[in-house]
Amino acid sequence: MTARVYLDHNATTPLRAEARDAMIAAMDVVGNPSSVHAEGRAAKGLIERARAQVAAALGAEGADVIFTSGATEAAALACAGRSLRSGAVEHDAVSAWTQDDLPVDAQGRVDVADPAASALQLANSETGVIQDLPEGLAVCDMTQGFGKLAVAFNWSGAQMALVSAHKLGGPKGVGALVVRRGTDVPAQIRGGGQEMGRRSGTENVIGIAGFGAAAEAAARDLAAGVWERTAEFRNILEKAIAAASKETIFVGNVGRRLPNTSCMITPGWKGETQVMAMDLAGFAISAGSACSSGKVRASRVLAAMGYDAQAAASAIRVSLGPQTTQDDVARFADAWAARLRKHRARAA
Amino acid sequence: MTARVYLDHNATTPLRAEARDAMIAAMDVVGNPSSVHAEGRAAKGLIERARAQVAAALGAEGADVIFTSGATEAAALACAGRSLRSGAVEHDAVSAWTQDDLPVDAQGRVDVADPAASALQLANSETGVIQDLPEGLAVCDMTQGFGKLAVAFNWSGAQMALVSAHKLGGPKGVGALVVRRGTDVPAQIRGGGQEMGRRSGTENVIGIAGFGAAAEAAARDLAAGVWERTAEFRNILEKAIAAASKETIFVGNVGRRLPNTSCMITPGWKGETQVMAMDLAGFAISAGSACSSGKVRASRVLAAMGYDAQAAASAIRVSLGPQTTQDDVARFADAWAARLRKHRARAA
Repeated sequence: MTARVYLDHNATTPLRAEARDAMIAAMDVVGNPSSVHAEGRAAKGLIERARAQVAAALGAEGADVIFTSGATEAAALACAGRSLRSGAVEHDAVSAWTQDDLPVDAQGRVDVADPAASALQLANSETGVIQDLPEGLAVCDMTQGFGKLAVAFNWSGAQMALVSAHKLGGPKGVGALVVRRGTDVPAQIRGGGQEMGRRSGTENVIGIAGFGAAAEAAARDLAAGVWERTAEFRNILEKAIAAASKETIFVGNVGRRLPNTSCMITPGWKGETQVMAMDLAGFAISAGSACSSGKVRASRVLAAMGYDAQAAASAIRVSLGPQTTQDDVARFADAWAARLRKHRARAA
Repeated sequence: MTARVYLDHNATTPLRAEARDAMIAAMDVVGNPSSVHAEGRAAKGLIERARAQVAAALGAEGADVIFTSGATEAAALACAGRSLRSGAVEHDAVSAWTQDDLPVDAQGRVDVADPAASALQLANSETGVIQDLPEGLAVCDMTQGFGKLAVAFNWSGAQMALVSAHKLGGPKGVGALVVRRGTDVPAQIRGGGQEMGRRSGTENVIGIAGFGAAAEAAARDLAAGVWERTAEFRNILEKAIAAASKETIFVGNVGRRLPNTSCMITPGWKGETQVMAMDLAGFAISAGSACSSGKVRASRVLAAMGYDAQAAASAIRVSLGPQTTQDDVARFADAWAARLRKHRARAA
């Protein structure tokens, strides 16, 4: 039996060894970070260390890092009640709180008229399309870019940013809202007054320790050029797919994209069918972004870029990770091409 | 050097071996629970297993278990916008959302006039006082009782209950809102539609797996009578303290209390001073409930029971865990009595 190949790193990426080690070490730290005794101070120390690690990795030294249960909670904290506008390419966690009618061009770029009243993602999870961030942006969803792109919160011009641990090798269920010092962030989850009064509840100490370690490791990988190699493999993959299927469209490939992401539309072959066929063949990919299980609907992101419903329904997303090899993508392309031939034979 | 003795289990209790093992196993499960491929289904399986474990341990089979980032988030989800009333003995996470003026008697019992419009805790974190739950209660904070008391959500008469993993040997930063099936729970954190649309955001898979395993182990310990032994040790402790200090008051000890909790007022000796002295002596205890670090204020709970500010400021909480030994409490009582003598000598 051949090992499975995981190519859905934008949905979530495996836990990094550094995060695993930090989490296992944190399991032995007994105290509640709010307790004043030695055990409590030790737990508090783990959180503050992770806060410094996340801030350093994100170029957010001096900004406030408010740990949350993920980017989705951070989005609610940043966006709820603020009457923000966005393009229709934002993640559901953001667009749940915004009027999402800003113009989006065919390459997925959003035209932001009033940055101070807008939310804009750094990079799109489905297509990998990277936005130019306007100065003075209210909220930037950096979830998909953090760890894969050289980005510094302090230089981004954004007032607030959302990040998530599990997109860069930390655990699922941990994230942060990063805000310029002095920004007013009224608490939504109230009680004990943790996180400087902005987010109550006993902290996820083990998960936060994992986030810190993962962020530090991701920053090191990024500096070492890991994603440049990944981008090469992604490009090799797209060449192989194009050779097998002349009609396949690579969404957003004219402009800047995440180094690891390929969104491919093969007209007439449903994305869901492709995902299931490739799953059986031993490859994990997705048809759009991973949301609640079983949800089937056309991609808002592709619709906003001008693709019709049929094209959008024929999209898959292949997203590589730092451990993905050239052999992985070659095997994927071969298997995909074989299924495409079957699909065509059946359709003929 | 003697090992430290941790007697602050109501603030948080060490991770159980079963939770640790489940979490480490979950670290190898790569997928996003919302992904449809094999890796995603494996992650989803871990969550559903934990959901069944928590439901079984809480006697909540057939109810909906909505995983959250802790009891504090669950409280917001249960209480915000519902105009509930409560007594002033509720945790801050509940009282942040309630009008907390229901009558509280000298033993800490709350008189609930309209259960359907009220929140009431099962047991108090500071005193251990157990409430009789009225039929039809809107919200019950079961955080401190779950795992220590034989309680079944389905028999409690409550519409909703809050629980937390880290009070029964699971990780910090995980909890659940448990609701009778069919209860309307509008989402506060919106986006991907996870947790049946009631709580969006990629799930804390590792933490949830730990919660499930811890709940199962806690239920087993409870059935095996572990807490009866703990109650004996708590009573031995209180006898030893009473022998050393005739004026010490054991709060709520006339009625039903948690088996592990002792709230002791020693008039004229500040609780904070006691906590610091005992910390230096190698014992972790607390002066009230553990909230955000550094917060110093008189206990609302003790004030509601009729204690004056000076008495309330002289309280400590000693809370035992399932691993606490008779030797631990004997050593604590000796060390405490020695510090009390020093304190008296200084005060004289």
